[in-house]
Amino acid sequence: MKLVSFRTESGKAGNGGQGFGAVEDGMVVDLTAHFAGRATGLRGLLAAGLLDEARRAVADAPRRTLDSVALLPVIPDPDKIVCVGLNYRDHVAETGRTVTENPALFARFAGSQVAHGQPMVRPRVSDRFDYEGELAVVIGKEGRHVTEAQALSHVAGYACYNEGSVRDWQLHTSQFLPGKTFAGTGAFGPWLVTADEIPDPAALTLETRLNGEVVQRTTTDLMITPVPRLIAYISTILPLLPGDVIVSGTPGGVGAKRNPPLWMRPGDTVEVEISRIGVLRNPVVAEE
Amino acid sequence: MKLVSFRTESGKAGNGGQGFGAVEDGMVVDLTAHFAGRATGLRGLLAAGLLDEARRAVADAPRRTLDSVALLPVIPDPDKIVCVGLNYRDHVAETGRTVTENPALFARFAGSQVAHGQPMVRPRVSDRFDYEGELAVVIGKEGRHVTEAQALSHVAGYACYNEGSVRDWQLHTSQFLPGKTFAGTGAFGPWLVTADEIPDPAALTLETRLNGEVVQRTTTDLMITPVPRLIAYISTILPLLPGDVIVSGTPGGVGAKRNPPLWMRPGDTVEVEISRIGVLRNPVVAEE
Repeated sequence: MKLVSFRTESGKAGNGGQGFGAVEDGMVVDLTAHFAGRATGLRGLLAAGLLDEARRAVADAPRRTLDSVALLPVIPDPDKIVCVGLNYRDHVAETGRTVTENPALFARFAGSQVAHGQPMVRPRVSDRFDYEGELAVVIGKEGRHVTEAQALSHVAGYACYNEGSVRDWQLHTSQFLPGKTFAGTGAFGPWLVTADEIPDPAALTLETRLNGEVVQRTTTDLMITPVPRLIAYISTILPLLPGDVIVSGTPGGVGAKRNPPLWMRPGDTVEVEISRIGVLRNPVVAEE
Repeated sequence: MKLVSFRTESGKAGNGGQGFGAVEDGMVVDLTAHFAGRATGLRGLLAAGLLDEARRAVADAPRRTLDSVALLPVIPDPDKIVCVGLNYRDHVAETGRTVTENPALFARFAGSQVAHGQPMVRPRVSDRFDYEGELAVVIGKEGRHVTEAQALSHVAGYACYNEGSVRDWQLHTSQFLPGKTFAGTGAFGPWLVTADEIPDPAALTLETRLNGEVVQRTTTDLMITPVPRLIAYISTILPLLPGDVIVSGTPGGVGAKRNPPLWMRPGDTVEVEISRIGVLRNPVVAEE
């Protein structure tokens, strides 16, 4: 099942303006009304353990064309977005860093996210706006001290992420956060593909394209810290909650490490495609 | 005015279990009912711009003893907690690092916070649990691209923060996040002192005590990046929202850099005292 979040017309009618539904045959099956009072948004649906009921509710729910809804980031309001740096050897090599035993984790704030189709925003203060195609892992079940063996049972599903990075601000100090959480830089979509359709997150291909040109390409078996170990490591620190997002790292080919560098510019179109998931596509605009 | 968050008995009665009130003469003036339907929690009170009404409502609101309420972290559910590393020269020096032109920012997740009086939790996986006394700045008014001159008008108030750090996990890689967001390690209290009572956040004294012994002492004029510049820098990246927390950095004297190192252990009591605010006091326990 593919699940999307979108803006409802009712706006602030108790659901924070978040609708959600399934995508079938290019149509959005609107599940918002079916779960009214029981689940606010997709995060709420996951937290309430209602994925199975969502599957059954699809048959009788109202349908709208995908074009007619204003998509939101897959999970607009996660409690946590944990990003993984330097998780593919070719990217570690191009940055001149060395592989570490443990994953390099940093955060992104939810307010930096945009949906499939929405513009990614190059900020006023920089022209070093870079793409990073990544596999996003969405947690479906709360857990602390989750073992690697049990980790995948905590996953609700997967999506594409473009972890747009403002490179000069990322390198202001040793800590990446400033360059990783500018408003409008984290594209998350187009939808969540539930984990039953992706039994092995290490068996996917990922490709990033800038204006149609392939700029990154990998298979996810090349992650240095694979998804189950990321879940075990992070859940040692604090509980993972339904709707939490792990953005699992980008492969080599980033624009900053090309000669000459290749930056995203207003007018560009950037895509992240992952097998079994689909294509996340965003235009690039300048901050107003 | 001093403001606290606390757990309500009604639990999930539409307010997420969050009550809030003012502290006067050792009593909590419960403002939850007065603002029912208009403000969920202290963050909601700030977002709705209701501080002035809160001041007026104190006269007629019910009072309870401070001991009878289960305090929560000052803001239990901030949209963002932005921590500043290496923001006092004596701390930069003891870490062997160098001063950077821009502040070193990293995140802490809200789920890692505890209230005044609640235990700070040394995790199972480490015995290198360190204190960091810091001034917390709570945002009261939304803003993007806030100038330094206007920055303090965006502040709702100030509190003490003990940014408990798991040093070995902080140093697993270049990125501090893992050691900075373990469950139960971020103590935030005892209350918010509104900004009218603290016209200059650079004119405070801060002291950390472990079992009564002074281990850190500074004046806040020694911050490398002062509060107004922190607000300007962060709001260049993305909007600051009401309830957001900036944890402004710790001075020298951390346990990790002593010889021998001084770690917090179960049974210890740790305090952070800031002039014009008060004392944040927490016992230390081991993770179960």
